[in-house]
Order: sequence, then C-alpha cells, then structure tokens
Amino acid sequence: MKTSIATVCLSGTLEEKLHACSAAGFDGVEIFEQDLIVSPMSPEEIKALAQRLNLTLDLYQPFRDFEGVDEAALTANLHRAESKFRLMNRLGIDTILVCSNVATATINDDEVFVRQLRALGELASKYKVRIAYEALAWGRYVNTYQHSWEIVKQVDLPNVGLCLDSFHILSRGDDPADIADIPGEKIFFVQLADAPVLSMDILSWSRHYRVFPGEGGFQLQNFMRFLALSGYDGIVSLEIFNDVFRQSNVRRTAVDGLRSLIWLQDGARQLLAEKGETALLQMETLPSAQRVHGFDFAEVVTDSPEAVAETLAQLGFQFFGQHRRKPVQLWKAGNARIIINAKPRLEHSTEVAAFGIHVEQPSTALARAEALLAPRVARRQLPDEEQLAGIVAPDKSEVFLGSAEHSENWEKEFGQGTKANSLIEDIDHLNLAQPWQAFDESVLFYTSALNLQPLPATEVPSPMGLVRSQVLVSSNQNVRVALNIVPHGTAEERASHTQYPEHIAIRTHDVVTLAKQARAAGMQFLKVPANYYEDLASRFDLSDEVLAELEELNLLYDRDDDGEFLHFYTATIGDMFFEVVERRGGYAGYGAPNAPVRLAAQFERNRFNNWS
Amino acid sequence: MKTSIATVCLSGTLEEKLHACSAAGFDGVEIFEQDLIVSPMSPEEIKALAQRLNLTLDLYQPFRDFEGVDEAALTANLHRAESKFRLMNRLGIDTILVCSNVATATINDDEVFVRQLRALGELASKYKVRIAYEALAWGRYVNTYQHSWEIVKQVDLPNVGLCLDSFHILSRGDDPADIADIPGEKIFFVQLADAPVLSMDILSWSRHYRVFPGEGGFQLQNFMRFLALSGYDGIVSLEIFNDVFRQSNVRRTAVDGLRSLIWLQDGARQLLAEKGETALLQMETLPSAQRVHGFDFAEVVTDSPEAVAETLAQLGFQFFGQHRRKPVQLWKAGNARIIINAKPRLEHSTEVAAFGIHVEQPSTALARAEALLAPRVARRQLPDEEQLAGIVAPDKSEVFLGSAEHSENWEKEFGQGTKANSLIEDIDHLNLAQPWQAFDESVLFYTSALNLQPLPATEVPSPMGLVRSQVLVSSNQNVRVALNIVPHGTAEERASHTQYPEHIAIRTHDVVTLAKQARAAGMQFLKVPANYYEDLASRFDLSDEVLAELEELNLLYDRDDDGEFLHFYTATIGDMFFEVVERRGGYAGYGAPNAPVRLAAQFERNRFNNWS
Repeated sequence: MKTSIATVCLSGTLEEKLHACSAAGFDGVEIFEQDLIVSPMSPEEIKALAQRLNLTLDLYQPFRDFEGVDEAALTANLHRAESKFRLMNRLGIDTILVCSNVATATINDDEVFVRQLRALGELASKYKVRIAYEALAWGRYVNTYQHSWEIVKQVDLPNVGLCLDSFHILSRGDDPADIADIPGEKIFFVQLADAPVLSMDILSWSRHYRVFPGEGGFQLQNFMRFLALSGYDGIVSLEIFNDVFRQSNVRRTAVDGLRSLIWLQDGARQLLAEKGETALLQMETLPSAQRVHGFDFAEVVTDSPEAVAETLAQLGFQFFGQHRRKPVQLWKAGNARIIINAKPRLEHSTEVAAFGIHVEQPSTALARAEALLAPRVARRQLPDEEQLAGIVAPDKSEVFLGSAEHSENWEKEFGQGTKANSLIEDIDHLNLAQPWQAFDESVLFYTSALNLQPLPATEVPSPMGLVRSQVLVSSNQNVRVALNIVPHGTAEERASHTQYPEHIAIRTHDVVTLAKQARAAGMQFLKVPANYYEDLASRFDLSDEVLAELEELNLLYDRDDDGEFLHFYTATIGDMFFEVVERRGGYAGYGAPNAPVRLAAQFERNRFNNWS
Repeated sequence: MKTSIATVCLSGTLEEKLHACSAAGFDGVEIFEQDLIVSPMSPEEIKALAQRLNLTLDLYQPFRDFEGVDEAALTANLHRAESKFRLMNRLGIDTILVCSNVATATINDDEVFVRQLRALGELASKYKVRIAYEALAWGRYVNTYQHSWEIVKQVDLPNVGLCLDSFHILSRGDDPADIADIPGEKIFFVQLADAPVLSMDILSWSRHYRVFPGEGGFQLQNFMRFLALSGYDGIVSLEIFNDVFRQSNVRRTAVDGLRSLIWLQDGARQLLAEKGETALLQMETLPSAQRVHGFDFAEVVTDSPEAVAETLAQLGFQFFGQHRRKPVQLWKAGNARIIINAKPRLEHSTEVAAFGIHVEQPSTALARAEALLAPRVARRQLPDEEQLAGIVAPDKSEVFLGSAEHSENWEKEFGQGTKANSLIEDIDHLNLAQPWQAFDESVLFYTSALNLQPLPATEVPSPMGLVRSQVLVSSNQNVRVALNIVPHGTAEERASHTQYPEHIAIRTHDVVTLAKQARAAGMQFLKVPANYYEDLASRFDLSDEVLAELEELNLLYDRDDDGEFLHFYTATIGDMFFEVVERRGGYAGYGAPNAPVRLAAQFERNRFNNWS
C-alpha cells in the first residue's frame, strides 16, 4: 500500500517535514492546513518541492464545521471551501478531508447534512476535488463511521466518499467490522493512529496522546483486516497528534512513523492469511520474525576497564581472553558473557553500549530489522573473523543478532579460555536508559525489529522524579530488556544526575553464597537502608535469621504468588552497575517494589560518594 | 493554623526535604513512608534532625488496605500495623493515616469495617497512636467522607478519627458542606490539594496532576470554610502528587507550597467574614490585596542598547533621558515607558527583565507580597532617589510596585524629557517565558502576590512543539501578562532555539499609520507568509484593499463577537521583540489564532536569519 503521513505529526517547518518524509521513504504526505498557512513557501513552491522529493501530496486537511448549519452560514462555508479548492488546484491535491461538524452545527437532520454535503460535492467537482467525509468521535451530531457512511451513500456523488480514522472509531470502542461492508472505492482516505489505553476525555486523548501504530493499545491489525475486506486499495496514512513527536527530531519521527506502517501491514497480512481471507490490498511482506533464544553477550564500553574487570572478578566471572586485534576483553561465568571494551564513545564514561542475542535465523532476523528501517552497525570485520551483524536501537544501543554457532566462532577471537564452575547462570536482563523523546519509538523498535513483547509499563518514584519503565521480553522469557526514561527536571541543577545509570543483571541460583563470596573478594555493594529491612519484616513473615542475613549482605527481597526474588546491586562504575538476581519458583518480575530503594540509594551516593 | 506538608510532594532525599520545609517556614511535615524506607537515616536521626530544624512530625502515612478483610488477613494487617506503631514511637509521631481499603477488601459490611478498625484503634492506643481514617475516592467500598465518618462514629474510640483530603472529596464532585456537621475534634488531620479541571480517571488525575491550592480549579476556600465551621483547629497540610514537583528544585517547591497555604487561609478567612460566619480557626491574615491600576514601565536589559533604542525610535518612542547614575535610558510614547538597561544579566542577551505596575497602596501591596514569601529585589537607592521596591517572580522577572506619584519622581532621575505626540497609548501586555518547572508556581505567584486573575490556559502549536500559555489580567484589564512555557524537546539539538523570545506589546489607536511610519523609518518587521492572507480571505469578508494593506504591512488580523484586533511584530533583538496592537471595539484577546504564524515565522528566521 502507498504510505503517507500528515505533516502535523512532525516538528519543524513544512520544508523540513517534507525533506524528512522523503528521506524516511514515505510515498506521500497530507498537508495539514496550519503548516501551510505559517509557511513562507507558496503553494506552487510546495508542489514543486514535493515533486523534486518524489512525494505525492495526498490530502488537504482539515476542513471543519461545514454541515448542519443555516443558509447564511452555508454560504460562508461554501465561500471558504471554494478558496480551499482553488488552493488545492495550485498544490495539485485532489482530496480534501471534511470533518463532521463539531462547533457550528445547529440542525440535527440527516437530510440537511446530505443536501449541504451534496452542494459541497458539486462545487468541488468544478475543481476536480474529492470530498473525504470523516466522522469525528466528538462530532456534534455525526460521530460514528456508520453514520457518515449513511450520509455519503445518500449524497450519492462520485466525488464524495469517506475518510476513516482508526482513532475516531476505536477510541469510542466502536466495532470496525462494518468497514468490510463499505465498497472500497467509496473509502477515499484512511488515517491510522494508535493510542495508549487511557481513561480520559476523547478530545484531550486525541490531541496529545496519539502514537504510531504498534506504540499503543488499539487492535489496528484487525482494523486493517476489515479495511482490506472492503476492497480498499488506496493510501494508508498516519495522523498523530503527540506532544512529544511535535518536539522531537523530525527525521527520526518520520522513520519511526514509516516503520509503524510497514510493521502494521505485515501484521495485517498475516492476520488475513491466518483467517484464510483474501483481499485486494497489496501489503508489505517482511522477512518473518525470528524466535529469540537468549542473550549472547553484553558489552560495556568504558574508560575504566580495570574497574569493570575487578567487579566482574569479584562476582565470580573469569577472564576468558583479550581480542586478538581490538582493546576488548571477554569475561565469562556460566552462560553469561560480558565484553569490556576500552574504547568509550564519550570521555569518562562507562555504559552498556551493546548486546547480542541468539535468534533462530540470524540472517532473516537481520533482513527483517533492516526492512523495518533499523540502521546497521557500521563495523569492519576481517575475512577470518566471525561475521556478526548488528543494528542500532533508538537509544544508540547496538544489538547483534547471532546463533550459538556464531558465539563459538567469535569467542575464538579471544583465545582459548577455560570453562570454570560458577554460581552464575546467565544474563537475566538489561536495564537501558532511553532518551525521553524516543520512548515510544524504542518500544516499537524492540517489538517490531527484535520480536520482543512489551509488558505493562510502570512508574518508579525516585528522588529525581518518576522514572517511566517498560519491560520487553522474548516469548521464552530468556531475553528481558527494561527501558527506562529518566525525569529531566533537576538535571539542569544537579550536574551529577544528568546520567541515569544503566545495568546488567546476572542470574544465579544462589545469591546468598554469591554475595558472601563477592564481599569476601572486597566488592562494593549498594548500601540498602536499615529502614527497608524493618518494613520488610512488617510485610513478610521472614525469620529474624533470614532478615539479618539479607541486611548483612545488602540483599533486597520480593515475593509474589509465583515465587520469591532476591537480589543485590554493585556500586556504580561510571554510568553503569551490575545487579545479581536469584529467582525462586516462578517469580517473573524484577523486584519493582525495591526499585525506589535502589534509586534513592544511588542518589544518596551521588551526593556523598560513599559506598558501604 | 499550623502548616504541614507531606514529604512526597518534594524532590530529593528525606534529609533535603526536611531542610527545605524548614527553610520555607513550615511548622511540620508528614512523613511519607516510602521516603523513610529509602532513607539511610534511622528513625531516631530523623526525629532529632526535625527537632533541630524546628519541624514537628505530624503524620505517618499511608497505611493501606486494612479493613474489610478475612481473619487471616486481619492478623497479618495488625502485625504490619504494630510494627508501624513501634516505628512511630521512635519517630515521635502520634498520628497515622489509614486509607480506606482499595485492593484487598472482600467483605462489604460496615459492621466488619467498624469491628476491624476498633481492633486497630485498641492496638494503637497501647502505643499512644491516633488513627486518622481517610476515604479514598477510589476506595473499594468506602469512598466518601460521609461514609468514613459514619464508620468512625461507630468505632467510637477517642483515638480513632478522620482524615479529610480535599482531593478525595472534590474530585468526585462531592459537596463538602457536611464537613461543618462533624465535630472538629474528630477530624484528626486535613490534607489539601488542588487540581486542574481534567476529565480523566480519578486515580491518574490524583497521582500525577495534583497542584498546590490556588494552582488548580477546586473551590478550596469553600472547603476551608466548612472545615472552620466544624470547629477544627488542627493542622492544614499539603499532599500533592505532581510529576513536575517531584523533579523540581526542592527549596522552591517548598516555598511555593507554603505560599499556597498562606494564600488559602487568607481567602477562607475573608469568605467566612463575608458570610458573617465565625469559627474557632486561627487563620493567617494578610495585608489586603491592592487594586492594580496599570503598567508603570517595562525594562529591557541588553548588551545591544542601540538596537533596542533604534527599534523604539522607529515605533515612535522618544528618548526621555539617561539615568543620572546608571547605564539606563528611559524612552516614552504616550503612557508607555520603556527602560533600556545596558547591563545584561547574561552575556549576549536581550530580555524583558523587569516591569513596574501602579497599585492602590504600594507599601501594602509590597507587604502582602512579602507575606506571601515573595523575595525582595536587591537594590540600592541613594537617599535622593525614589524608593521603588520590587519583588522577584519565579521566572526571575523583577516586578516593581509603585504609584503614579512614584513614576513622576523616578522619571526625574532621567532628566526633563519633553512629552511628544504619539500614536502609542500604553503598554498593552507583556509576554514572559517561564521555566517549565515553574509554571504552576508562577500562576500562583502572580495571582496571590500581584492580584492578577488567570484566564483559561491555552496551547499554541509551533515548529518546536506546543507552547503552553497562561494569561493573567488585572481586574481593570490594564495589566495583562502572558506566561508561556517553551517545549524543550528539540532545544538540545537546535542550540539556536534554547531561548524562547519574550515580548512587550504596545497599544495604539492606529496600527496602520504606525506601521507605515515604522516602515518609512526603516524598521524590520516579522515577515508574515502570503498563505496567511489567503486563509484570512477565506475566513473573513475583508475587502481586497484591506487585505492588500494588511499584507503589505505584515499586519495580522483577528475578529470575535466583541471587536477586531490588528497587530504586527518587530524583528527579534536577542531574546525579545516588540508587538504593536490595535484593539477595535471590545476585543479583549491576544490574536491567539495568529500566534502559530508568529512562532513559525520566528523559527524560520532563526534558520535563515533573514528579515523582510
């Protein structure tokens, strides 16, 4: 299907928006009227620029508050419309979006709506303009697509059809199934928007919180399915009003948007196939999503390789070898591989910069990610080195896709380290800081390009504000990534808190012994306040001995219906630290009640720089 | 009344919070449990620190999910409670907040609630602890204060009473009038929170959007009135969950909070007096709010005094004189006085740094502002110079309070300039950029300390994102200040847009002639796009001649039921510019539909630095 996007989704000037849409790979754009009005470019210049950029101008929008008015208002509205039709001729746009009347309608009568829209259609036909009539969810009298379709049927003009917008239909909880019964050729335009599940008035929800498909909670693949069944084979476009997108990098947002349309078409195509339904619609087919098996490695880039190595050794990791060509060491414990890369991207930083995952067919997974507009990691391998390809996530993390066989091969580049016994099993999860503007983009990226599934988002209180957290997991639960956005409020005033530390969590089957060994080896723990253990005693029936041991070892504790969770944190090295976790029974969480303790303790430490 | 605040309102560590509350002048604090749990300070240390800081510890909170449970859960809950009572004894806190059960209640039976709360009360009495039972708006079975009062009455223990929270009562739309009938001594604690009028689920509204009294839309003075009529004479406390406060400077937020309580008590006292009602309650009495007459002056501080002077001259301002002692010039036109101060606070900046207003009794107005914790401007006047006192607003604007007589006197320090004819009448309004964390604080500051009234807030789309705008006006409409917060998203990437330009708007009775004269004098206008005038033609029945003149002079136009508005903008000088407005008929707005045009044109100019 041809892809389009409304210019209102993006930040910047109209000129910047057109360049960004073209660079991302959209086929066309909708011109949002306000963007044109404030632009110094003439309509002819906009048309010519779009042509040069290989973008079609698909829709002029919105035209508001037309139908259901008295005769004087109708005359004024037709005057207003005619001037827009002339403008559209200059722009070379043949379709205008007419929204159902919100503000000025006074006559609730379908016959009046039909008569007035027919007058509009007849006027439009002189300018070869098509009317795409859309029921806004908060339209005064017309607010369902079934109603707008009834009216369009009665108008019965070849140049008057429907615009369907997923937000206006799904936000009301309306069933999109009836779309299948509308003749596809009477659907003139389709706008897609997703939205998080929020309980608020629809207008505010619509104006501030829309997101790209796959970033919210709507069943858009099902929506697309009914659209396909209608016989529609036109453009699918994005119309997203989002406070964050409006102030984010225009080029990134455009890529994010196109990724969402590619992902959605592939999903809808699969859904149709599953249901054995056939449709006219040409939809994007992607290389299939690959099963994710587990973590391959995590990579710390640092200006302090010795500090990282010391902590790993204290945790029971063994030095495996130095890379034959690069300033990179491999440390191993159980199935956990940690790479220490002594070439920091920024001065004086230590961060989780990359990780690898094992997937079913790495080359297919990579092809899928690239089809979803994931950029490839720029990396040169020598002919006799293992070819391990990676993609760059929105937070700039590099994610490498390989197989167990790849791992065996790339390990050899580090020599022939011996396998030692260890209490450590594997990498349990990664916790990665996200730029606040890239949160929705990151979620779509990790779900679409890396086949992880999002769990419900949470918020963790911290002395710096609420930290928004989103966990993504592979279907077998072996790969778990927590994305966190940091509040940015006090960052200006506290230079020391501009960075939110990331971490690598290691799983063990015996956290108590491991903690004792680490302590004996001189490791610095994040100090857990005594008040925490008193609260623990009030909440859980733990024996005094267990409580004393937890406190002595700075272990945190959680329990749910499925099992128990014990964990500790190391001191922070630069902008990262390690966590060690033990999962007992079926506990699948991350000790969320303890996260505020961790954040506050790290905040204290930043103030006083004292470790226990 | 004694004032208190819950530590959850503030950012930082518990220690920082206590210091900030003490410095602001609170009498006490509520210890929010989570803040204690994550703190490295022992209960004894917290108690001692509070004593040293002269703060009482008024409440331990919250204790959740107690009543309406089966016997096993009751036993566990009593165990949990007892450990908190012991902790409270160590802290020296005698009252605990018990919220109505949200999550674990399974038995909907008042008799069970009463019996279980009585057991809790009896246990608490051993520790000399009082139970303040609060109905949460989303409590499973108990969610109105009438219901919680019914239960407390039946519990009938001296140490079991009520906690009333304005948010939980007013968010549901409940009438607070019944509070007057509750015996004051059974109200153990009062928490106050305001909130903006939003239509969303109450839990999200409560957890993210609460604001201090006077910053939202609740009728809190009326709430306080009924509280006073109940005979309550205890503590009034703030419990505000706010995403912004949680990440703002803790000291500023504490001052903002205490200001809100001072303001609220004064207002409630007045309301009681107006109604001829008497109450036990000792409430703060402030110097009375003074009528605001009009603008005295606006001051531009700049490293480019010549550029500002040139623009003023082109607009028809006359140089009045140079200050006898300071690098400061006075320019006048009609009643508008603009001061150019050649001592910028920051290098390479030009900004609206101060303004003066005429008020009924300046000394009373100043005393009121100071009672509301407004800091005084640090300023030394010589004995023979006019004493003009000012206060510093949250955005760091200096606001001077004077009378017409003051103006005559301070003008003399600039010599004896002659009065010339001018098309200019006065300063119409100021538009001031606000730090995003200080928005609610600014609104309360300008309304409480400066007696301006807020109009409904709006949002203006710009290429950088939505700009939130809040206009405040004096009752006679002569002083109008628009506060704007700038989206901060792209600031990191576009160094040139880190500053949002502020402006001074000048009112004339003939904007067309003034624009022509300014153009003849070589003034640079903000260029308005041609597309704007085409849209104007479609919206209003303006003649071709009028439209041509508007376009030629870069004038913008708006109309409403009350009249017309014509205006233009000058080029930006540093971080500020001038606007000239003409109001025809009763037009009281600010040309809001044109604001996006202005923002986009300024954005374009920043990209290309080209002026028409």
